[in-house]
Amino acid sequence: MTSTAELLARRNLTIGPYSPLFYDEPLQFTSASGVWFTEASGERYLDGYNNVPHVGHANPRVVHAIAEQAATLNIHTRYLNERVVAYAERLLDTFEPRLDRVLFGNSGSEANELAIRIARQLTGHTGMIVSDYSYHGTTITLAGLTTGLQTAVPLDPNVRTLRIPDLDRDQRPEAAVLADALAELDAAIASLQETGFGVAACLFDPLFSTEGMPRVPAGLTAGIAERVRAAGGLVIADEVQSGFGRTGSEMWGHRYAGLDPDLVTMGKPMGNGHPISGVVTSETVLDAFGSTNEFFNTFAGNPVSAAAGEAVLLEMAEHGLQDRALALGRTARARFDEFAAAHDFVRAAKGTGMFLGLDFAVDGEPAPGLAKRVVEEMKARHVLISRIGRDESVLKVRPPLAFGEAELPILLDALESSLDAVRR
Amino acid sequence: MTSTAELLARRNLTIGPYSPLFYDEPLQFTSASGVWFTEASGERYLDGYNNVPHVGHANPRVVHAIAEQAATLNIHTRYLNERVVAYAERLLDTFEPRLDRVLFGNSGSEANELAIRIARQLTGHTGMIVSDYSYHGTTITLAGLTTGLQTAVPLDPNVRTLRIPDLDRDQRPEAAVLADALAELDAAIASLQETGFGVAACLFDPLFSTEGMPRVPAGLTAGIAERVRAAGGLVIADEVQSGFGRTGSEMWGHRYAGLDPDLVTMGKPMGNGHPISGVVTSETVLDAFGSTNEFFNTFAGNPVSAAAGEAVLLEMAEHGLQDRALALGRTARARFDEFAAAHDFVRAAKGTGMFLGLDFAVDGEPAPGLAKRVVEEMKARHVLISRIGRDESVLKVRPPLAFGEAELPILLDALESSLDAVRR
Repeated sequence: MTSTAELLARRNLTIGPYSPLFYDEPLQFTSASGVWFTEASGERYLDGYNNVPHVGHANPRVVHAIAEQAATLNIHTRYLNERVVAYAERLLDTFEPRLDRVLFGNSGSEANELAIRIARQLTGHTGMIVSDYSYHGTTITLAGLTTGLQTAVPLDPNVRTLRIPDLDRDQRPEAAVLADALAELDAAIASLQETGFGVAACLFDPLFSTEGMPRVPAGLTAGIAERVRAAGGLVIADEVQSGFGRTGSEMWGHRYAGLDPDLVTMGKPMGNGHPISGVVTSETVLDAFGSTNEFFNTFAGNPVSAAAGEAVLLEMAEHGLQDRALALGRTARARFDEFAAAHDFVRAAKGTGMFLGLDFAVDGEPAPGLAKRVVEEMKARHVLISRIGRDESVLKVRPPLAFGEAELPILLDALESSLDAVRR
Repeated sequence: MTSTAELLARRNLTIGPYSPLFYDEPLQFTSASGVWFTEASGERYLDGYNNVPHVGHANPRVVHAIAEQAATLNIHTRYLNERVVAYAERLLDTFEPRLDRVLFGNSGSEANELAIRIARQLTGHTGMIVSDYSYHGTTITLAGLTTGLQTAVPLDPNVRTLRIPDLDRDQRPEAAVLADALAELDAAIASLQETGFGVAACLFDPLFSTEGMPRVPAGLTAGIAERVRAAGGLVIADEVQSGFGRTGSEMWGHRYAGLDPDLVTMGKPMGNGHPISGVVTSETVLDAFGSTNEFFNTFAGNPVSAAAGEAVLLEMAEHGLQDRALALGRTARARFDEFAAAHDFVRAAKGTGMFLGLDFAVDGEPAPGLAKRVVEEMKARHVLISRIGRDESVLKVRPPLAFGEAELPILLDALESSLDAVRR
């Protein structure tokens, strides 16, 4: 294997020095299988972070499906193909009956772009409401509503942001916290209407992952949806992180969050790493958009991507991965709660299913330095996790859904030991 | 195989009735190999249209590369990976030395979005200049500058369009045609400047494929670039159709067209159907963008996509596909010229390399109906081609670059016979 220093130098001269890397000393893997990475040295790392390899790195069923279909036929949707239709049927079967149409894409960015494009056309408005620390993709429109990542552009004038409250940080009564958040939303809607943009849509991750998994007041997401609809806007759920059984209790994050969206976008885990994304919506919405736009995406809905997506759903079903996420997630969350109780620098345990976190704070102030040290301590113990949230003070534990009973104690024990290490 | 009627019904209930299909009676293939499709009946069709399966449908080297890498490791660029760097090096080796950096994406739309985003940031302007019959992708920004496809949105206010002249249609002296086109460009630039948008970039396919492959005056593309740069804008070459040796004489269409771009975007043939795209630019441009934006695209630059891209370049080199396109393209173009001479409804033969056309006209007026009949006659002879251009009067012959000496006479003879058939 090329040395890290040499590879970094070559990388800087091709894709450039700005392409982000994890960790103070970047990692270079030669292979991965299930939930384990392997370095050239033979050293293994447990993957407690990546949600893209949903049914496990190098999943044999997915690899076989891709290889077999690629060796048979890979073509766009301008010819009829049963595989993409069969996959669409299988995917839509996981949704409530109202959400019965799907448009495919190649990335989460493409899915969110399309959802917003549809919402703007159907409503005749352009205004967007997002959270004040969120990320939905890389395009111009999405960069214009990005609040959770450095970009050189200011927010677009037709974007309003909403602070997502966290009951673990805001000690006031839940009703008061909710009322404040909805009042802020009312002001955002009024501002969009006064400036003539109107409300096209709100766009939220139902789990508020980038935001740091705040514990939101009951009724917040439903209240947002109700007000946005009353203003003539649509509700978009960005399930790039929360979908495909991540929460354990539900296949789709919007159901976990009590949200009833008009459009659901999905990406990362959909093809286990094969580039595929989707927008799921209703016949009514698709009719209004499709009948007035020639819409065609060359790679989208090709049978190889469909084969990858289908294999993910089959693998999830055969191994009961959603149920496993529920069971293991409960075990893990109980231990995270113990960690929170045991360490005064852990403000709260966060999350649900196989998406968990620990919010670090010292004297009531976010402690990103501690969180970073824990991430590096975990890496030293060969367990990979990361950080999220406005202050980057929340540990992000979001392993492949294939994470099993055998691996969970390894992660939890490494975390206990890492927490002890930074306390010293 | 499911019947066409049944599959259409299921398709309409999942991805919807608006997803476009080729031909009056859509085709449904069960497999494809090299440049041949196979139907369930065993009937074969010669692919004279698809540029995505660049090195041949189900190319064994590409399939093997994808399968092997997917079975080994498929991960994003936040970990170091040699394969993506090695592919970037190989790809950049095909460019002039000034263009020495690449950012990967998953679709041509993502590549064009990123190029425009970079151009807008670097120039501080937002104005775009495109041709008046062009297509560059599906996103909101790209839909706002789409002139060659029906969309429900008007052109964005910061977009100006340029009619691309065709010396096969405009009989005036070449110098006069050129002067008129550049005068139109000057007016577009002036309008963008007067309205305060300024000129961020021009965005053109160097072959003007969607426009119908006009025979442009010498100096047109260089003249456009010079004026756009003088106005402070950048030059983007959309090589989604013209790149990867399509012209035969050059690896990249911008070199064929005498254009010296700041940014080159690529997609369709790049991974032989695996979703991958790229923006190639200079170190200076990447530095200016990268140093001020956190830019990360989950699927982009994954090692499986890199493996597919690498296999395409290796296969092109091993089989000399660019040289073959040059040689076969000359043979084909000579025959196309004969067709043009033989039929008074063929105004001119068009194109270069393995991208050829015939422009149909009756009494000086475009004849899309005749072109459509020829496409269907070709289909009846089991050879697949399509139509392009504002009037859809130009046959589009753009087969996989793996198209060989054995297949060319089949296509040409079918075309001769189809032209005879519609003359009657």
